[in-house]
Amino acid sequence: MKVIYAGSFDPVTNGHIDIILRSRDIFGEVIVAVLNNRNKKVMFSVEERLDLLSRVLDKEENIEIDSFEGLLVDYAKKKNCRTVVRGIRTSMDYESEYTLARANMHYKDGVETIFLLASDENSFVSSTLAKEVAQFNGDLSIFVPDIVGKAMMDKIKGGK
Amino acid sequence: MKVIYAGSFDPVTNGHIDIILRSRDIFGEVIVAVLNNRNKKVMFSVEERLDLLSRVLDKEENIEIDSFEGLLVDYAKKKNCRTVVRGIRTSMDYESEYTLARANMHYKDGVETIFLLASDENSFVSSTLAKEVAQFNGDLSIFVPDIVGKAMMDKIKGGK
Amino acid sequence: MKVIYAGSFDPVTNGHIDIILRSRDIFGEVIVAVLNNRNKKVMFSVEERLDLLSRVLDKEENIEIDSFEGLLVDYAKKKNCRTVVRGIRTSMDYESEYTLARANMHYKDGVETIFLLASDENSFVSSTLAKEVAQFNGDLSIFVPDIVGKAMMDKIKGGK
Amino acid sequence: MKVIYAGSFDPVTNGHIDIILRSRDIFGEVIVAVLNNRNKKVMFSVEERLDLLSRVLDKEENIEIDSFEGLLVDYAKKKNCRTVVRGIRTSMDYESEYTLARANMHYKDGVETIFLLASDENSFVSSTLAKEVAQFNGDLSIFVPDIVGKAMMDKIKGGK
Amino acid sequence: MKVIYAGSFDPVTNGHIDIILRSRDIFGEVIVAVLNNRNKKVMFSVEERLDLLSRVLDKEENIEIDSFEGLLVDYAKKKNCRTVVRGIRTSMDYESEYTLARANMHYKDGVETIFLLASDENSFVSSTLAKEVAQFNGDLSIFVPDIVGKAMMDKIKGGK
Amino acid sequence: MKVIYAGSFDPVTNGHIDIILRSRDIFGEVIVAVLNNRNKKVMFSVEERLDLLSRVLDKEENIEIDSFEGLLVDYAKKKNCRTVVRGIRTSMDYESEYTLARANMHYKDGVETIFLLASDENSFVSSTLAKEVAQFNGDLSIFVPDIVGKAMMDKIKGGK
Repeated sequence: MKVIYAGSFDPVTNGHIDIILRSRDIFGEVIVAVLNNRNKKVMFSVEERLDLLSRVLDKEENIEIDSFEGLLVDYAKKKNCRTVVRGIRTSMDYESEYTLARANMHYKDGVETIFLLASDENSFVSSTLAKEVAQFNGDLSIFVPDIVGKAMMDKIKGGK
Repeated sequence: MKVIYAGSFDPVTNGHIDIILRSRDIFGEVIVAVLNNRNKKVMFSVEERLDLLSRVLDKEENIEIDSFEGLLVDYAKKKNCRTVVRGIRTSMDYESEYTLARANMHYKDGVETIFLLASDENSFVSSTLAKEVAQFNGDLSIFVPDIVGKAMMDKIKGGK
Repeated sequence: MKVIYAGSFDPVTNGHIDIILRSRDIFGEVIVAVLNNRNKKVMFSVEERLDLLSRVLDKEENIEIDSFEGLLVDYAKKKNCRTVVRGIRTSMDYESEYTLARANMHYKDGVETIFLLASDENSFVSSTLAKEVAQFNGDLSIFVPDIVGKAMMDKIKGGK
Repeated sequence: MKVIYAGSFDPVTNGHIDIILRSRDIFGEVIVAVLNNRNKKVMFSVEERLDLLSRVLDKEENIEIDSFEGLLVDYAKKKNCRTVVRGIRTSMDYESEYTLARANMHYKDGVETIFLLASDENSFVSSTLAKEVAQFNGDLSIFVPDIVGKAMMDKIKGGK
Repeated sequence: MKVIYAGSFDPVTNGHIDIILRSRDIFGEVIVAVLNNRNKKVMFSVEERLDLLSRVLDKEENIEIDSFEGLLVDYAKKKNCRTVVRGIRTSMDYESEYTLARANMHYKDGVETIFLLASDENSFVSSTLAKEVAQFNGDLSIFVPDIVGKAMMDKIKGGK
Repeated sequence: MKVIYAGSFDPVTNGHIDIILRSRDIFGEVIVAVLNNRNKKVMFSVEERLDLLSRVLDKEENIEIDSFEGLLVDYAKKKNCRTVVRGIRTSMDYESEYTLARANMHYKDGVETIFLLASDENSFVSSTLAKEVAQFNGDLSIFVPDIVGKAMMDKIKGGK
């Protein structure tokens, strides 16, 4: 069975990778879909985000890396896949996801959302927090793979 | 008895309409008060929001449609009404409302806030989500009345 | 307008009294309905609970004190009143109330539930906690009116 | 892919059936596993619960109905299935499930838990509430299938 | 500075030990106070619980192991210590603790409660869950120290 | 023992002051550390915020007022203090704090976070809400000390 794991991945974190690999192991195949949200200020372009994902997941099988624009339900239809996966860290996460999952279930040709718990060691990991820490030259290893940490520091130095 | 139901209504959703009609049925009379928040980026002007509300609630009785600027407690005093109604969808909603309700209770001449649960079919409906969906030409019928959906699409096309 | 405020009231606390009086002030008239739940172990009999409520609310107007057995929707129908009031202290309270309110809305001839926030000083007050404290001769004044505190201590000494 | 959906099912509700059918549709095959918890007071014996499930799911394919005793991880190992499904109604549900899911993930040969949201119309449905309502001859149709409602009423009359 | 860490400790878990040691490291000195709650069904007597705590914390300094009966505020007064520590795992934990902490703050000569987060690896650990798992001969090492695990298995076999 | 209480304090509220004084009373000494976050739009400059804190806490002992830039863990290391204090009002607060506290615990040379409950009368108080109310000339006394209220009104009039 094939599932979609969509998100901004700006950039991909240890938490994302954990959900990607566990989803692949549980369901057999996972499409990692980078959302191209033109209204949101990002650190990495879609191309850069796809590149980081590819390099980080280099050795892994049964993982497709892709990007999309627009609504998740429309993308899911195009990919002929009616199930999306979401990771949850806290019950606040759950609450925000609830609204989206409910909406995605109610659209015409809606999709089912299935939730996985974040692993213990990633319960605090987010792209947003990693970007804040990077700004002050903090320890990124608890948030992102080395490849990503290096790309973040290059970006920050380049931006100055 | 008369209650105030205040909000941005940018634009009015199926969820708002459900709370308006149930409030009217429970309390007898409801004032729908559109907040004119000059600092917030909106899709529809206050006049347009009032117009949409009027058209959608055209056939309903004992509903006053109005707008206000400033603090809700001051508006409530002016309208000689000490009770406001809020709809809640999730416990995250409840938490945000809690802070406002507490503050509104503590002001000099404060107001009481009473909460109603959103109906099942509206538990995921919000103006924000509707606006995101409209942007990608998605199905708006689960979020807003047809009149409102049409106005949203006109706005989006006009804006391009 | 008339609302029902139902509960075990075993015994009535400062928190209950706050909701009763505020409900009366907001809606005009309130029926305080003591649930006779035969399966639950109680400190006070229904008669004793009714007596404590009467004495505590002695000087107050537009408050009816009553008892009932069975489902709240059936009682509400009998009293010709379709609105019940509930007080909420924390978001955990909200969650438990959510399930009951949803069910009460879905029954044939269902009732609407409206929620009021507990006042600051009662945010931790419950009959259960008061009973635990009474057992160890603790300070009851932050939980219950003096009349009730005395009745609790008499009960505990009598029970020994 | 095959998943386990375990629970007390005392008795099976409309909410359970919704999760069973959606799980089957998403994953292909589902094992409905009735927990034989000897310490818990039940309305129906394990045999009766299995019988009700069989009758209610009579016409459905790819659903195995079974019972087990002991730990879910041990049962999952025996059935050679490493994924269990849980339905969530509210964030309080999520919090309780969180603890169990975390533990089940940490045991040697642990299992993954995946969460599905309850459908709107079942967001308040529970076996516990259904049993309370049955006691007072209330409307059971919003909680359980007719077959189950009848069995509950027979049980209650027989018990008197 | 000295703090009290009170609880049932029936039996002490890895989660308790983590909070005890971190409290000692942060505050300097901690009193571990076993609550003797006569109304609660327990696995281990107060004496056995004290003995397990002593053996598990054998090599640690600045930890006093004690027991008490009655209200925590009264015990704190007797020990001349106005600060208690609580560990939190989930936001549901937080909500239950909130009520107790609020009450303990409001009593005459009340105490302050300070909260510490459970460590990642203990976020699902509880005495209750450990006891359930022990019943079915499950893996106890993720819940309790070996000494405690052995005592639990002895108790269960002895009880049969 | 010495603890750090860090925040934006833009401006300091009654809620902040309550946590500062209680922390000082519990732990002996507190460092109030104003975060200089260059990316955030503020009402008061760091200098103004430090000045308001100094004037409001004028008569209090064992309180150090300071400012910092960058990561809290780095500042804590510099101050040779491994414990930070946070106030919590609602469980949503708790959830946001959870993520930061977890991260701060996991960094190399990480810090421990200890949580205190906001007092009842400050459960709804925040700098953000105070700033909204100030804009409409509302009652600031339930949010901030008089000195701060005056500074806010001067700022708003000056800004026009």
